[in-house]
Amino acid sequence: MIVDLRLVSRHLGLLMFVLSGLILAVGLFSVIEHATGLSEAQGEIAALLYSAAVGAALGALLFLAGRKGERAFGQREALLLVALSWIIGAAVSAAPFFVWSSLRQDAADTTHSFDAFVNCYFEAMSGLTTTGATVVESLATVPRGILLWRALTHWLGGLGIVVLFVAVLPMLGVGGRKVYRIEAPGPTPEGVTPRIQDTARILWLIYCGMTAAEILMLRICGMGWFDSVCHTFATLATGGFSTQDASAAAFDSTAIHLVLIFFMVLAGINFSLYHQLLRRQWREVIRDPELRVYLGLLAVATLIVTASLMQSPPASAVDKSPGLTTRDALFQVVSIQTTTGFCSADFDTWGFVAKATLLVLMFVGGCAGSTGGGIKVTRVVIAVKVLLAELEHVYRPKVVRTVKLGRSTIDADLKTNTLVYVLGIGVLFALGTVALRLLEDANGIDITTAATASAATLNNIGPGLARVGATQNYAWFGASSKVVMSVLMLLGRLEMFTIVVLLSPRFWTQR
Amino acid sequence: MIVDLRLVSRHLGLLMFVLSGLILAVGLFSVIEHATGLSEAQGEIAALLYSAAVGAALGALLFLAGRKGERAFGQREALLLVALSWIIGAAVSAAPFFVWSSLRQDAADTTHSFDAFVNCYFEAMSGLTTTGATVVESLATVPRGILLWRALTHWLGGLGIVVLFVAVLPMLGVGGRKVYRIEAPGPTPEGVTPRIQDTARILWLIYCGMTAAEILMLRICGMGWFDSVCHTFATLATGGFSTQDASAAAFDSTAIHLVLIFFMVLAGINFSLYHQLLRRQWREVIRDPELRVYLGLLAVATLIVTASLMQSPPASAVDKSPGLTTRDALFQVVSIQTTTGFCSADFDTWGFVAKATLLVLMFVGGCAGSTGGGIKVTRVVIAVKVLLAELEHVYRPKVVRTVKLGRSTIDADLKTNTLVYVLGIGVLFALGTVALRLLEDANGIDITTAATASAATLNNIGPGLARVGATQNYAWFGASSKVVMSVLMLLGRLEMFTIVVLLSPRFWTQR
Repeated sequence: MIVDLRLVSRHLGLLMFVLSGLILAVGLFSVIEHATGLSEAQGEIAALLYSAAVGAALGALLFLAGRKGERAFGQREALLLVALSWIIGAAVSAAPFFVWSSLRQDAADTTHSFDAFVNCYFEAMSGLTTTGATVVESLATVPRGILLWRALTHWLGGLGIVVLFVAVLPMLGVGGRKVYRIEAPGPTPEGVTPRIQDTARILWLIYCGMTAAEILMLRICGMGWFDSVCHTFATLATGGFSTQDASAAAFDSTAIHLVLIFFMVLAGINFSLYHQLLRRQWREVIRDPELRVYLGLLAVATLIVTASLMQSPPASAVDKSPGLTTRDALFQVVSIQTTTGFCSADFDTWGFVAKATLLVLMFVGGCAGSTGGGIKVTRVVIAVKVLLAELEHVYRPKVVRTVKLGRSTIDADLKTNTLVYVLGIGVLFALGTVALRLLEDANGIDITTAATASAATLNNIGPGLARVGATQNYAWFGASSKVVMSVLMLLGRLEMFTIVVLLSPRFWTQR
Repeated sequence: MIVDLRLVSRHLGLLMFVLSGLILAVGLFSVIEHATGLSEAQGEIAALLYSAAVGAALGALLFLAGRKGERAFGQREALLLVALSWIIGAAVSAAPFFVWSSLRQDAADTTHSFDAFVNCYFEAMSGLTTTGATVVESLATVPRGILLWRALTHWLGGLGIVVLFVAVLPMLGVGGRKVYRIEAPGPTPEGVTPRIQDTARILWLIYCGMTAAEILMLRICGMGWFDSVCHTFATLATGGFSTQDASAAAFDSTAIHLVLIFFMVLAGINFSLYHQLLRRQWREVIRDPELRVYLGLLAVATLIVTASLMQSPPASAVDKSPGLTTRDALFQVVSIQTTTGFCSADFDTWGFVAKATLLVLMFVGGCAGSTGGGIKVTRVVIAVKVLLAELEHVYRPKVVRTVKLGRSTIDADLKTNTLVYVLGIGVLFALGTVALRLLEDANGIDITTAATASAATLNNIGPGLARVGATQNYAWFGASSKVVMSVLMLLGRLEMFTIVVLLSPRFWTQR
């Protein structure tokens, strides 16, 4: 066997231990919260503790199965470890939803989305990949312990569960860098420090600091502690799970919306820029070409959407003041481009121009090295620059011009890689649309729903248009469609190649 | 001025002379055909003769305006000449339609699509670019002389009006090669002979030979002489204009359909392969990688569409025999992939799988160096090969593998150019869809119609789906939409860059 499965299995086992520990921690939170009346929270506590136990057992099994493997990580082992971490990690993360649902006291009389494991898996994958597409029709039916775990999957997936793993477990050694490069989003994931463990730790520290800051600010603006924590997890991971069915629209406070907007914008920025800020390298940060385009796009898109809303306001918002309209436009633009997917208004009722703008932003996504999804701003910038260079080549065939991003030259390999990535996302989007259209034929799915469901899962956003619009959910899809969309979410989060190579026979056979 | 406008103007003038000569020839055909009763064909004869005169006058004006220009063609002059040849050539080609309509005896009482010049321009551009999208609601209203000119625009545009020009007018000198390379479709248009005039002449000779062969075969199968000529022009140019509203479905004869299929397939093949055949280089032709993929795609797509039709036959074709069903599937697959756009059945009523297959073929298109449109098979092959190489790179980061097509290596420039082209077509398709959706908002256009109208004009096919489906036409669009679609057709035919660079300020200012 070319790929050392034992090595992969051993590390996978360790990772499941870490995940189980986190589920256990949420279980303990539930115990503490309901300390005075444990019996009323029996179901959720049992679900979390059982799931933690199952996850730990699975981890032990995987660890033991692989205890005799080699020590050195190759590229293939790193790829397989990352892919399986997400595929199996989502299954373990789905356990609390599933167990809770089967332990419900009213389980015999009523049905719940979480009754079917495929729904729980979809929800967990949506959480970990920070997509935020939900199958839960009424969040009021789900207890707080389970909601907290649901929000925590976002937070863990945001920077990367494997990156967390690299940070807390030093035993990966040089393999850590390989694993880190595979999971970190963006075309050129460079470590900010020479040692990859240090990089991972610094990124997680920054992430934790921002988390504390947002929780505090949301609380100050009047949100409850629990909602503040859950929404912070969803914001900084650019996830989008809310504790309310109406999403951000449930909190009718400009202050809260502004805090969410502010932190969504921060979450969409390359985290290594924060590290540079900590080292007071202001100039480098300000001059970062990707950051400028990212902020510029947000501003221009907000202007377009605001203008569209002013010109043809949706029926529900005819009387809105210009200020509120701008707030809605800004919120939605930021929420979609950062691929968070919170909704402060039902943008499905907006005009065509507004919707088309949001659809374009879905594909652009956040910056490389951020927690955001999509194609990434830097790839879009490179693709546009290469396109312009090709145009110049048409009327100046003899001029050879190097394409630059900031001060660094884009070499031929990066050009090809970027263009292939953008094209690949286009192809996957089309395949996803066709697959959903075919699988939901009996459900009478329209092409807008199929296309935006494909785009919203592939780019890790959450809500789309029409029947997956802002006020809708993904519960009505059939099981096969949910599997397809889970794959799309994973393809988007791990940037396509990591998953696709596993399907290549040569990966497994050719040295 | 960096671009020598006089040089361009002079050659443009010559080209308009050639075009006018051809209109005159069609006029003479009408005169001869109606020799016994000239008065009844007054309108069409007058329209053709007037148009020829106007074209010639325009040509003289352009020639005189540019008589003092330099002699040597630069890359920019070549680009501008090709672009303007098509833009102004379409206007001259539209004249017969427009003049005929204004001279109609019933012009005061009835309306006709050709009353508006924008419609005539759309029709002429659709003809020259071999798209075959029509604004004529009833072809029975149009006299034969005008229909013949309409079919001839296909035949002229197929190999390229400027290429024809290069072939018949030796005075272009070295500029000929520049012009030829710009107009010839495909990423690597290599001349088959050292002298470009020879190449252009040989290609036109092959084209004429095939034209004679198809006319004869259609006639033998029972089609009238006139219809044979018109359908041959439309077939070999992969155009799609018919003399019947029902297109090929009007001829319910398997023999005729098979002849059309045969010649559509031939027209979609790289014409330089025919030159190789003439030189008895059988082996090179059989080994041509693009040809193999092209024929393979046609076969696989036919199987898929046939299976889809067998499994869920459209209401109108429930009783069709398997043979007839296969014939319909083969005809439509060939018609769409070669970007001809003849219809032998209303494929808009077919199942989703069949329609999705046809939609994919729309973008693939014919071979490079054929008269077909679309992205071209060779570009799709290169893009797929580069994608696979990138995938291998993921798990074997150190292996550097050259991507090959047949026996030639694909260098970095061709890779970038191909990927940018495919991406560019995707972007133009999306922009076209959005523009049509916006412009026809009042007309209540659906997204399927907007998207397939954009795809069908950009890829030079003709019919799309829904309201631009097989039994529909383009008459109902507003004037602005027709301009947009005319631009899309031109962008597709001249392979995008030639038109787009003219919009770049640097093209005009920077040395």
